[in-house]
Amino acid sequence: MSYPVLAITSGEPAGIGPDICLDIPQFDLPVRCVILADINLMRERARLLDKEVHIVPYQAELAPQDKTVLEVLHMPLAEPCQTGVLNVRNAPYVITLLDRAHQGIIAGEFAGMVTAPLHKGIINDAGRPFSGHTEYLADISHTPQVVMMLAGGGLRVALVTTHLPLKDIAAHITPELLSSVVQILHHDLQHKLHIAQPRILVTGLNPHAGEQGHLGHEELDVIIPTLQNLQAAGLDVRGPYPADTVFEPFILKDSDAVLAMYHDQGLPVLKYASFGQGVNITLGLPFIRTSVDHGTALDLAGTGRAMSGSLQAAIAAALEMLPPQC
Amino acid sequence: MSYPVLAITSGEPAGIGPDICLDIPQFDLPVRCVILADINLMRERARLLDKEVHIVPYQAELAPQDKTVLEVLHMPLAEPCQTGVLNVRNAPYVITLLDRAHQGIIAGEFAGMVTAPLHKGIINDAGRPFSGHTEYLADISHTPQVVMMLAGGGLRVALVTTHLPLKDIAAHITPELLSSVVQILHHDLQHKLHIAQPRILVTGLNPHAGEQGHLGHEELDVIIPTLQNLQAAGLDVRGPYPADTVFEPFILKDSDAVLAMYHDQGLPVLKYASFGQGVNITLGLPFIRTSVDHGTALDLAGTGRAMSGSLQAAIAAALEMLPPQC
Repeated sequence: MSYPVLAITSGEPAGIGPDICLDIPQFDLPVRCVILADINLMRERARLLDKEVHIVPYQAELAPQDKTVLEVLHMPLAEPCQTGVLNVRNAPYVITLLDRAHQGIIAGEFAGMVTAPLHKGIINDAGRPFSGHTEYLADISHTPQVVMMLAGGGLRVALVTTHLPLKDIAAHITPELLSSVVQILHHDLQHKLHIAQPRILVTGLNPHAGEQGHLGHEELDVIIPTLQNLQAAGLDVRGPYPADTVFEPFILKDSDAVLAMYHDQGLPVLKYASFGQGVNITLGLPFIRTSVDHGTALDLAGTGRAMSGSLQAAIAAALEMLPPQC
Repeated sequence: MSYPVLAITSGEPAGIGPDICLDIPQFDLPVRCVILADINLMRERARLLDKEVHIVPYQAELAPQDKTVLEVLHMPLAEPCQTGVLNVRNAPYVITLLDRAHQGIIAGEFAGMVTAPLHKGIINDAGRPFSGHTEYLADISHTPQVVMMLAGGGLRVALVTTHLPLKDIAAHITPELLSSVVQILHHDLQHKLHIAQPRILVTGLNPHAGEQGHLGHEELDVIIPTLQNLQAAGLDVRGPYPADTVFEPFILKDSDAVLAMYHDQGLPVLKYASFGQGVNITLGLPFIRTSVDHGTALDLAGTGRAMSGSLQAAIAAALEMLPPQC
């Protein structure tokens, strides 16, 4: 690909996705971004926000427009969108944006996708079982396992488990899962983030990383033996570290990512450090996919109070992941 | 008390406790600090570190010394201490420091205590069941329940549960426990931290605070009803918030403390934000007790590489907790 194009899916039409996409011409990025959205929705939202944005239909065969222009690949809504109000009839539209982005990636039209937030509930209400962006993209690309990583504030934090009730986490931490997550993380740090010899720091499951078995046995039974096997295979993976000290600068130094065992062990510090500019990166997919790290914020849509920092960071992260020849 | 005196227990003699106590004259604090330690140990450690510190025996009846002087209440070691090497024969000494500080508080000699780290393992090896500083102080002061709170980097984080294996946490989160922890936290924010109307933000137990029951039921079954009862009793307690968003500035704003459900949900962000200057504050005790938030670091003792920032912060926190008449 001589000139990379990123597909930006604008997500739930009633939420802040369209609002933040309208800021893209201001980002001044060295890449062509194409917004997947209903072009009329984008124009209406721009009017509502009193934003002067030059919106034009995307035409793949044309040279990219001036950066001050917002190119929109028009995908029609089923019904006009009422800002801030979910509509079950527009739920399929949100899925269609993802499908189109994926098809474009397969066809070589897009170098990757960046996703604005969608609303799981309304898609489920529309009668379609849907557990999230990440799972859907894994499904349509026939990817057996993906890994969620967030980046921001100088940190990268990947997770062994994601959306599980707390009481179920310990039983999910198996040697097989931990081993495959480390390998996906290591592979993608090398091949998507272009880090030649990634160093990964792994947390324990229990407080103080189990304190030699006094505060839980999963470190001794599962985590330590698994890390030893991975080390023997040549991976620079270290730990388990207590989660409350691994983020201290003298431990983090020279590492490329922290692998936390679960959601609330790893993400509070990442979101605190990244200050609203965190990026969600899906590892393990056969293509580049980054996302904002926030939700649809229905109450902020159309108010001018939505912040586009996370979208800007997500596009920048996707850009860094492009192959060097792009 | 006309002139407050803080008792500083120097903790495990082979660790960095004595080293960091030697920095106290540099802190230039508006309070008289008395180090509980073997005075010969302190002199030897000062020599080893090549520190010029004027060490004198503490005499309660004398006027406080010049701030450049380190006053040591001499408590003899059983055997000379080898720096960095634990000695089971000196384990009772560490306990004696705590007992003396506590007696001094009861007698009105000390306005509170600040504790340097001890080593649980060596005390247990000495044949004395000992699960930690906090539990020991609760025991000798006949306190049925204490709450651990860490402060630093502009944050205060208290914990509902502390040192439990991850898989056991959910079963421990009962209405009774949560309610009593909130009440102790609220009471001590008022009466020890002098905050007239404390506002407390409470996290959920599960990721996304359970997402309306999709990711766990403890929020619906336990946390929300308990918070409603506490609100009805007039407490400004809010939540449950997702742990990965509660630390974002626009949510934290105007709050006085975050109450996390467990250790690794609350402490990574606190330790990241406080950057080695965190303070551990024990709430619920009938006296002021603060502590450093690090361990004995045996390998750093006597090397000059121990950092005393957390001790300085712990003394400053104890100072802020003194009654206004002090």
